[in-house]
Amino acid sequence: MPAPAGPTVASPHDAADRTPAPLAGGTRGPEALRPLLGTVLDALDEGTATRRGPFPAGGPEAVTARLRARAAPALPETGTGAHEALHTLVTALAEGAADPAHPHCAAHLHCPPLALAAAADLAAAALNPSLDSWDQAPAATALEALTTRALAALAYPRHPAPDALVTTGGTESNQLALLLAREAARETTREAARGTARETTGRATGQPTRAATEEPARAATGKPARSPSRQPAPEAAGEPAPERTTRPLRILCGANAHHSIHRAAWLLGLPAPTTLPTPTGILDPTLVHTALTDPTTTGTPTLVIATAGTTDTGSIDPLPALADLCHTHGARLHIDASYGGPLLFSDTLRPALDGLDRAHTIAIDLHKLGWQPVAAGLLAVPDSTALHPLAHHADYLNAPDDTGAGLPDLLGRSLRTTRRPDILKIAVTLRALGRRGLGDLVEGVCTTARHFADLIDAHPGFDLYARPTLSTVLFRPTPTDDRTTAGLRRTLLHHGHAVLGRTTTPEGLWLKATLLNPHTTPDDLRTLLTLVEGQVRR
Amino acid sequence: MPAPAGPTVASPHDAADRTPAPLAGGTRGPEALRPLLGTVLDALDEGTATRRGPFPAGGPEAVTARLRARAAPALPETGTGAHEALHTLVTALAEGAADPAHPHCAAHLHCPPLALAAAADLAAAALNPSLDSWDQAPAATALEALTTRALAALAYPRHPAPDALVTTGGTESNQLALLLAREAARETTREAARGTARETTGRATGQPTRAATEEPARAATGKPARSPSRQPAPEAAGEPAPERTTRPLRILCGANAHHSIHRAAWLLGLPAPTTLPTPTGILDPTLVHTALTDPTTTGTPTLVIATAGTTDTGSIDPLPALADLCHTHGARLHIDASYGGPLLFSDTLRPALDGLDRAHTIAIDLHKLGWQPVAAGLLAVPDSTALHPLAHHADYLNAPDDTGAGLPDLLGRSLRTTRRPDILKIAVTLRALGRRGLGDLVEGVCTTARHFADLIDAHPGFDLYARPTLSTVLFRPTPTDDRTTAGLRRTLLHHGHAVLGRTTTPEGLWLKATLLNPHTTPDDLRTLLTLVEGQVRR
Repeated sequence: MPAPAGPTVASPHDAADRTPAPLAGGTRGPEALRPLLGTVLDALDEGTATRRGPFPAGGPEAVTARLRARAAPALPETGTGAHEALHTLVTALAEGAADPAHPHCAAHLHCPPLALAAAADLAAAALNPSLDSWDQAPAATALEALTTRALAALAYPRHPAPDALVTTGGTESNQLALLLAREAARETTREAARGTARETTGRATGQPTRAATEEPARAATGKPARSPSRQPAPEAAGEPAPERTTRPLRILCGANAHHSIHRAAWLLGLPAPTTLPTPTGILDPTLVHTALTDPTTTGTPTLVIATAGTTDTGSIDPLPALADLCHTHGARLHIDASYGGPLLFSDTLRPALDGLDRAHTIAIDLHKLGWQPVAAGLLAVPDSTALHPLAHHADYLNAPDDTGAGLPDLLGRSLRTTRRPDILKIAVTLRALGRRGLGDLVEGVCTTARHFADLIDAHPGFDLYARPTLSTVLFRPTPTDDRTTAGLRRTLLHHGHAVLGRTTTPEGLWLKATLLNPHTTPDDLRTLLTLVEGQVRR
Repeated sequence: MPAPAGPTVASPHDAADRTPAPLAGGTRGPEALRPLLGTVLDALDEGTATRRGPFPAGGPEAVTARLRARAAPALPETGTGAHEALHTLVTALAEGAADPAHPHCAAHLHCPPLALAAAADLAAAALNPSLDSWDQAPAATALEALTTRALAALAYPRHPAPDALVTTGGTESNQLALLLAREAARETTREAARGTARETTGRATGQPTRAATEEPARAATGKPARSPSRQPAPEAAGEPAPERTTRPLRILCGANAHHSIHRAAWLLGLPAPTTLPTPTGILDPTLVHTALTDPTTTGTPTLVIATAGTTDTGSIDPLPALADLCHTHGARLHIDASYGGPLLFSDTLRPALDGLDRAHTIAIDLHKLGWQPVAAGLLAVPDSTALHPLAHHADYLNAPDDTGAGLPDLLGRSLRTTRRPDILKIAVTLRALGRRGLGDLVEGVCTTARHFADLIDAHPGFDLYARPTLSTVLFRPTPTDDRTTAGLRRTLLHHGHAVLGRTTTPEGLWLKATLLNPHTTPDDLRTLLTLVEGQVRR
């Protein structure tokens, strides 16, 4: 591909200066950052003004061509200097952005971040702590422990020592939930093989609520037990393959579960999940009961996946009934509350999550209803001991004598090694807004969704799929067909007028509005509907 | 633990204002960000000045207590407002940071980020594109494609269509490399079972250099083929377990390989790697040859892991000899160049990586020698078709009719779903500095390391482990013992005087200086040595 003409000569100012480019940290970091941030803000202004709407017009080819004309070559021999590079590339990115802060950008669980959270994230980048060892992140380690425990306590209010890991999002949280279930199943199988299992029905994995209340309260040291089986064995050649359970973990989920459940099973070498139909959008306890009592699977360790806020419709599975079934039949329960979890912040909406704290693991994202820049995922557990299977050892990061001398051991808190302190922006947001402030925002977007549903209901030209549970509204012109609906969505994108998502139900394809912008007004919603209507009539 | 007194009342200004907190995006984002960024920069200044050195003094308990006194409660009922929260928490984080921009913070592959990269990252947070679908990140998609291909071409200069994925770091890159090898091994086993394997010696996985040069050049569409086997099957209950190969992938690595190789094997359900001893710090081709020709493993698909820049000593394995062995014996080769990969930017240092482009996969981190804030990892492959096993389908993100209509399909470019555009800061850095500017920085820190080695060599009170290959220098007082050396490191940390790492070799424990700061001067190095010496003499 021929590279468009691009920068080849440095500006005189940069060329004359052989001092290495300034750093973001240290005593001189803030003064180095100040003018560069000015350039970034100006470029954001300029690019956003040029875009003039929620989305760049012209479709993929045009957008890509415009970006390439600005940005190529990506790796020039000689640089253009910091200000030119920031101005050029930030302007290009802003001009070609799907802007979730625009009220007509409402396709995905893709939230507009709060300014204060984005500002906090700058400090994470400038200081660059890495949460794989305490000596790279002393204060960040303490801030993460404090903040994750506060959030875990919101999810598990009746447990003495709940904990949460910070993840890159629901996908990683779901992976970790499946991994913890896989390891628990191996342990169960080992116990059964040793004849020490408490029961043979698979109940050895326990139920978190009961287990925790029966257990004496203990100090939360945050130090996972070592799993020597995963330490590198430097001198051993030809180790045997790890033991294979004859009954690998069975995963039961609904068709409404997030695609990452299936991908995680594949990643972890587990059998594909058993997927139960969910024609109404939620998991039917009757079907789960049938699957759990299937005589051909007696004794098979089982993980049930429930969803609190599905991606497609924003529905919440019947959590209390599913928790009861898991308890009765000795199955583990993971609740993917990536979307709905932040209802916990709201006094009025929290009851919709009744039963949540009976899960063994809970995924919650704060880059959805939480208004954080990506990434801000969490995996909550009822007790920090539940994270022990993730314990890991690497001498340069958590040597036994260092840990013995009191240096916190962080490796068991993620499968990543180097790890950005995403907790900072979260902590700043929790402190700035408080639980009530966040609850107000969550209630606000749910109200916006109900208002949008009202508008659709009252409009003769549109069908509403259902009243919204969270902030997702499915609708479509009437009459229509799937091909027309899909084309309508792409046309709105092509013109840069609106960004809407899509969902298929047994009734066919719908347009999806995922309303996550707390500043969206009734007028914005009326205009959005008018835009869609205008496109239908063309 | 009793929570210290914390904020319970909002400031009058915030309490009076019921408008939701301002957003970072949209036309009003830049004006909302400007004063908040001022607060952040002031807090960074203040916290850094209070710390007065590379590291907070007092050890884990004191650092944690200071942080908690400022930051608790983490989730107050009522918020304190944006400026109070930013000022309090950013000051606390800066005061308690291990600052890699300080020349005496040199323990880990934990680099001081460039101010321009941190500034660019702010725009990523403000615009918040998510790289799981084109309609969330139109320009970011194009920028990522352009930039990753330019970087992949640096690693694979003789291949027509190299490609690279953006990862959270070497750990994720290594996971993906093992996953691609696992899937290739399954394919090989399937082919063998069908009697269609080209050979029976395991050579079916090919050698990338030869394969690519034999293959006709093709358009790099970036559209991975679909793997329907991983599509959710909504209506199917009780699917069979995926086929198990009788010979799972064998992984051969040195004891010098990164711990994440072992963890990735565990994650992926693979047998533990066979670990060959590396008493000299590098992988011995003779031992690899013996392992590859072990008659008990004939026909077993094998992945050899080489390292270009080990974490412990900065050594580079003999890449050409290892690539020859892999070619001869039909093994796959992954090179973990997380640390050493950026030598590619330098004309003088690049020859140390000869053989790199014969790997099937290469891990390169730009948050090590690349001066990016975390995360900035890459996994490079010689041809984008090598990424096809990662193809994945989720109707709301890459419906066939949308892909057919030309909307780029991004799900196969990561195992994450929601994904922050880490490419922006990378692209800004490449453009601002150019290849030569980055090469200068890489050469600079390698020169700094040689200079530090000279100082140690000339000092009668210290032993030098070896001349540095990259920018890692191992040294220790003489005489000493392991317990004293480990205690010395912790004492320097406790006083906040210096942050040094640790490495164990057959000769015992060493202090490790990983020199990644391009602004470190000879004077800084002399002072560092004097600080260590002073602590030895106490």
